[in-house]
Amino acid sequence: MSVITIERKVLEKNDEIARENRALFADHGVFAINMVSSPGAGKTSILERTLERLRETLRIAVIEGDVQTDLDARRVAKYNVPAVQIITRGGCHLEANLVRDALANLDLKECDLLVIENVGNLVCPSNYDLGEAVKVVVASTTEGDDKPLKYPAMFRNASVLIVNKIDLLPYVNCNIGDLKANALKINPSLTIFETSCTNAQGIKEWCGWLEKRAKK
Amino acid sequence: MSVITIERKVLEKNDEIARENRALFADHGVFAINMVSSPGAGKTSILERTLERLRETLRIAVIEGDVQTDLDARRVAKYNVPAVQIITRGGCHLEANLVRDALANLDLKECDLLVIENVGNLVCPSNYDLGEAVKVVVASTTEGDDKPLKYPAMFRNASVLIVNKIDLLPYVNCNIGDLKANALKINPSLTIFETSCTNAQGIKEWCGWLEKRAKK
Repeated sequence: MSVITIERKVLEKNDEIARENRALFADHGVFAINMVSSPGAGKTSILERTLERLRETLRIAVIEGDVQTDLDARRVAKYNVPAVQIITRGGCHLEANLVRDALANLDLKECDLLVIENVGNLVCPSNYDLGEAVKVVVASTTEGDDKPLKYPAMFRNASVLIVNKIDLLPYVNCNIGDLKANALKINPSLTIFETSCTNAQGIKEWCGWLEKRAKK
Repeated sequence: MSVITIERKVLEKNDEIARENRALFADHGVFAINMVSSPGAGKTSILERTLERLRETLRIAVIEGDVQTDLDARRVAKYNVPAVQIITRGGCHLEANLVRDALANLDLKECDLLVIENVGNLVCPSNYDLGEAVKVVVASTTEGDDKPLKYPAMFRNASVLIVNKIDLLPYVNCNIGDLKANALKINPSLTIFETSCTNAQGIKEWCGWLEKRAKK
């Protein structure tokens, strides 16, 4: 019981800091997204394609969350956008206080869009609000079409689903219709994009949505 | 600090039950493996190919761990082996007490090999000993070659690495040499198999290893 109590306190404290982050983003007119997925679904690759396309029209900053290494922040830094790496050292998700600390290294006055890339984990990050405007879940076709049913919390709490690696459909055991139907069964209000970072399919549509939301 | 203390107590209690499970497996001559991976890396598919190949020569039982649904236990039950589904309802990993409870539904006297398929999560299950003889981590080529560096605990604690979806190598951004080198950098004593559940590559070698270990 004590564990549950303390976990609840941790979540309450997290939600409190998330509200502060959210207020800070609102004050500065920053549109913040929290990208979540399994490891290797393609969050960083989608981010790279997004930076290529939008960095001239939007001022973008990035917070990278990883269990270990700064490999992702280095990939992002090549696009000349401000990037902060959070290394959780074993932690399975980002929390609002880690994002708050990272914000100390970013100038929100010079930012329209903040992309927070969470730790690759389809379970734990679903419980932790970071103060983002929307949670974007990335699911790869290579993971199969049953994942929304097996990991429902993440799909329930997201506003956007990006089905990535759409170019691999001919080679994998994934029915795209079933995948989307399963996702919509869990969360009927999901906005869905289908993308490939290899052939750029769907990147224009995703970036169009993002630009529109960030310029509101 | 209190959270850390309680987490340590949870882990100590888990390790105690894991030792009891391990003693039970030893008493009954059961070889138990704990399969871990990201969601959709192919644990269940590898298990299906393993059951096809070994169910005539070994008496196999399966414990399936999932956040939600009994889809995997149903896939496995088609092979006419005893299968128990644990649904964690949001829990991000299996714990030793859940496995102990599941064992009440299995007859270990009639079992040579117990396969425990963990929740799809490359972070949290690494901390929880279930009493298994070996942890088997499955990494899909579609996840890229940097995952051992980014999620080191899982690769450090595993004895076997199965690189799955090897047939997709021509289509994905993954250097198999780098993937194996990264894994061996984290854990030089890993035994590595390369498999495809589509064309059956490497399944014979993996099953040969498993049969030899289970018959010891």
